[in-house]
Amino acid sequence: MSTVNVSATMRYEIHEPTSFAFSITAARTPHQVVSDEEIVITPEVEMSVVPYGADTHQLLRFDADPGQLDISYRASVTLDGEDADPTDLDEVDFGNIPAEVMPYLNPSRYCESDKLGNFATRLFGDLDRGHGRVQAITDWVETNLLYEPGVTDGSSGTTDVLLQRAGVCRDFAHVSISLCRALGIPARYVSGYGVGVEPQDFHGFFEAYLGDDWYLFDPTGMSAINRLARIGFGRDAADAPFATFVGYADLLDKTVSVELDGEVDDEPDATSTA
Amino acid sequence: MSTVNVSATMRYEIHEPTSFAFSITAARTPHQVVSDEEIVITPEVEMSVVPYGADTHQLLRFDADPGQLDISYRASVTLDGEDADPTDLDEVDFGNIPAEVMPYLNPSRYCESDKLGNFATRLFGDLDRGHGRVQAITDWVETNLLYEPGVTDGSSGTTDVLLQRAGVCRDFAHVSISLCRALGIPARYVSGYGVGVEPQDFHGFFEAYLGDDWYLFDPTGMSAINRLARIGFGRDAADAPFATFVGYADLLDKTVSVELDGEVDDEPDATSTA
Amino acid sequence: MSTVNVSATMRYEIHEPTSFAFSITAARTPHQVVSDEEIVITPEVEMSVVPYGADTHQLLRFDADPGQLDISYRASVTLDGEDADPTDLDEVDFGNIPAEVMPYLNPSRYCESDKLGNFATRLFGDLDRGHGRVQAITDWVETNLLYEPGVTDGSSGTTDVLLQRAGVCRDFAHVSISLCRALGIPARYVSGYGVGVEPQDFHGFFEAYLGDDWYLFDPTGMSAINRLARIGFGRDAADAPFATFVGYADLLDKTVSVELDGEVDDEPDATSTA
Amino acid sequence: MSTVNVSATMRYEIHEPTSFAFSITAARTPHQVVSDEEIVITPEVEMSVVPYGADTHQLLRFDADPGQLDISYRASVTLDGEDADPTDLDEVDFGNIPAEVMPYLNPSRYCESDKLGNFATRLFGDLDRGHGRVQAITDWVETNLLYEPGVTDGSSGTTDVLLQRAGVCRDFAHVSISLCRALGIPARYVSGYGVGVEPQDFHGFFEAYLGDDWYLFDPTGMSAINRLARIGFGRDAADAPFATFVGYADLLDKTVSVELDGEVDDEPDATSTA
Repeated sequence: MSTVNVSATMRYEIHEPTSFAFSITAARTPHQVVSDEEIVITPEVEMSVVPYGADTHQLLRFDADPGQLDISYRASVTLDGEDADPTDLDEVDFGNIPAEVMPYLNPSRYCESDKLGNFATRLFGDLDRGHGRVQAITDWVETNLLYEPGVTDGSSGTTDVLLQRAGVCRDFAHVSISLCRALGIPARYVSGYGVGVEPQDFHGFFEAYLGDDWYLFDPTGMSAINRLARIGFGRDAADAPFATFVGYADLLDKTVSVELDGEVDDEPDATSTA
Repeated sequence: MSTVNVSATMRYEIHEPTSFAFSITAARTPHQVVSDEEIVITPEVEMSVVPYGADTHQLLRFDADPGQLDISYRASVTLDGEDADPTDLDEVDFGNIPAEVMPYLNPSRYCESDKLGNFATRLFGDLDRGHGRVQAITDWVETNLLYEPGVTDGSSGTTDVLLQRAGVCRDFAHVSISLCRALGIPARYVSGYGVGVEPQDFHGFFEAYLGDDWYLFDPTGMSAINRLARIGFGRDAADAPFATFVGYADLLDKTVSVELDGEVDDEPDATSTA
Repeated sequence: MSTVNVSATMRYEIHEPTSFAFSITAARTPHQVVSDEEIVITPEVEMSVVPYGADTHQLLRFDADPGQLDISYRASVTLDGEDADPTDLDEVDFGNIPAEVMPYLNPSRYCESDKLGNFATRLFGDLDRGHGRVQAITDWVETNLLYEPGVTDGSSGTTDVLLQRAGVCRDFAHVSISLCRALGIPARYVSGYGVGVEPQDFHGFFEAYLGDDWYLFDPTGMSAINRLARIGFGRDAADAPFATFVGYADLLDKTVSVELDGEVDDEPDATSTA
Repeated sequence: MSTVNVSATMRYEIHEPTSFAFSITAARTPHQVVSDEEIVITPEVEMSVVPYGADTHQLLRFDADPGQLDISYRASVTLDGEDADPTDLDEVDFGNIPAEVMPYLNPSRYCESDKLGNFATRLFGDLDRGHGRVQAITDWVETNLLYEPGVTDGSSGTTDVLLQRAGVCRDFAHVSISLCRALGIPARYVSGYGVGVEPQDFHGFFEAYLGDDWYLFDPTGMSAINRLARIGFGRDAADAPFATFVGYADLLDKTVSVELDGEVDDEPDATSTA
């Protein structure tokens, strides 16, 4: 069990009335307890915090008038993942994958897994099924992709990233997810905060369905899996953008801070906070 | 109100133990009543009918042994859509789109709406917002795409189809959905049965979120919108394949029949069966 | 016959020894006479002007040391195209296309004509063969694409541009060339200078092989076809970049001027300066 | 020096008057002497053998009437490549690449080298420049791609093949060429006949410009580089299809035979037959 203090600030210059939607609040799950949470928006606006889609995360929404706007978020997130022995975590046969998990086998906008059957089979088809194979995918991504902002952009999917051989955290997650799905392993994108992310920013990682639960992986290798505070999840990053707005505004400044509070647990081999 | 009798049969030659998942059963909604429903699988197997994903449709699942397998489905579907005057159906501002509807603004595997902002704006940006604009998109798709099986395949997304200028029902729906989303209109894929589809087969169409509900459109123009019996919905066709299996089997034969039972209502200008 | 005075200047800040190659000098053809030509490079460098590839244009090459470098080009170009009556310009059957012209039927990097067979046939397949059909393609491109710098970049091919529905002169030419080739009409990219281009810059257009010669078209509609001074030609813009260098340099400034000198002829319906 | 006997036959059923163009005749170069050459077409047609494009290969052309048509080609090709010590073959700096070689630095339809800068740099950027680096690319392609007909088709470019991780000889050549060009090494596609190709068929390989000449590589590893009889070369396979026709005909049968005649030389480390 560890506690992570997260905070984020964003400053916008708003030029005309604009509707905002943020996905930045830490998720509440049986394995993730949120306390001391505070959202401050200046100037004050009428905001709502509502479940997004099929309750994959919370959405913070408000309309704002022209002028400068500051949004500030902080929370203490106590992580108490369900650790597991990787050798106990098998892949699940198609016939036994729960029907509510099945959508995470499907290709999605940034995870064109249907195009990667040969690629995945050539690289990982001969490995033993289970957590170890997903770890091998994660390690391959960490080794073969260069972490380099600016090479990819919001329209880059897995096929683009594999050709660029470079990208940022969301790209690393997308490639990993695509390779899992191509092998028949359900996988989904997780947005959140990670201790050790450099440069510190909102983070993206993924989880795979193994045994009978969702297990965390960070293919950037920047954060230990028991220091990842989750915001929400989805098919891919399209489902969990940190900020969306319709109107006309400029982001002037953004800061993200993620700090361990107190004792540091060793990183487990496998953990679930879903 | 009209009643549609649907039936479908499929015959497989199974070569090794295979897990099947079908999305062929008519949905139950306040506007769609299903009666006289029968699923027969020969030889008998232990099957389950379970909600898929976030309950977007029912999934019929079973494992089967090698040999010939016949699956037969039939039902009477009484359609009692909520008709509306299109001029009452406005597009919804981003700030007012319900958070559970918002995922249908996102790009998806076969609906790369993020790449079509200019395209959609150039063709439809100057039209009045509302049902009429979605109808204009639907009409453009019907006019500019050729209905031609074999040009596209399971990996063809909207960008491919727009270059081929041809495809089948799922492609017509994908292009329409993408153009809607590119303009900020939530849209989703609907699988089902349509009276008048030629050649008769499982059908794909779409619905857009207007006013405060989901309204039906068939860009193939083959079926009246009050003769569309829905199976389920999703981001795009990836979410609602009629049949999926893992194992080794060949589809030997497939038949689909969709017949109006009794009186024929005039086609309304807009209707919702969600 | 008309005379066009062209000039271009570029200023670079060179950070390390750099090799430059420019394609900016006006071509000499039986229909294009170049006089008063001057190339000035400051500081002086040892330069060569050599035929590029299979003599498709001249290449101006030199190596330069760190520091500021100015390159200045000017010439008077007398255009005396071979005008023709468009109704005399038929498309040529495959069996009669000269073997040296045949490469311009092939798809190329930015002209993926092999992917546009259906698209071209749907839009232009029913038109009468000949110059009029190429003019129809040119008009369609001018009408349906928005001239908008910044939407496309150096990696954008025809399929990208058709989805963006916007681009610059090279994109307009690429789409036109692709549609011609998809219909079996040889077409090639021409780089040059055009009177009336706005904002004035190096220009790209194309020519199609009709009757027994190459005829000019400008799908941007910005320049009359008898006021286009050619630099060179190629499969597509990959073959005729205005400037290429290997090393490390920044372009600080660029100006292009193209002015009619004296009398203005009416624009002919078809002309060849190849 | 070795002699290779090549032969090829094709049988077509022609349904309407059709124009054919074949690129199957062995090239004549200072290092490749062709003797005992025979082209037989049954029934007899009026054919021409003409230089294609900028004389990159010979084109055999004729028009044929409906009915069955047999085309048969054979020749003895004596190969006397200019062998070299790979350690003597440096890459050429951009400023010293002959202007007639420069087009082979450009991206082409199936060799989108402009998209592979990062990929090539990540894998091969740290290697010593020269023949060894091109050999490393060739070896990587042979190791990482699966030779598997049917995975790719005529529209598959390098970016598609890299995702499929499989293809046929033309795909292996395209990937190699793209990686070379991405590193600034001129490379071009060569069509021909190769001893040892399995299953035997027309073959595609490539050559890179090193030192002051073009050197052969076969990334399929199926043929020794001194047993490759060249037909022609081009930017990529678009420039050298074995058969093209416009009209309506079906290929009923095709055979290719390539046999060593007499003594077998050891494979050299590097050879040029350009």
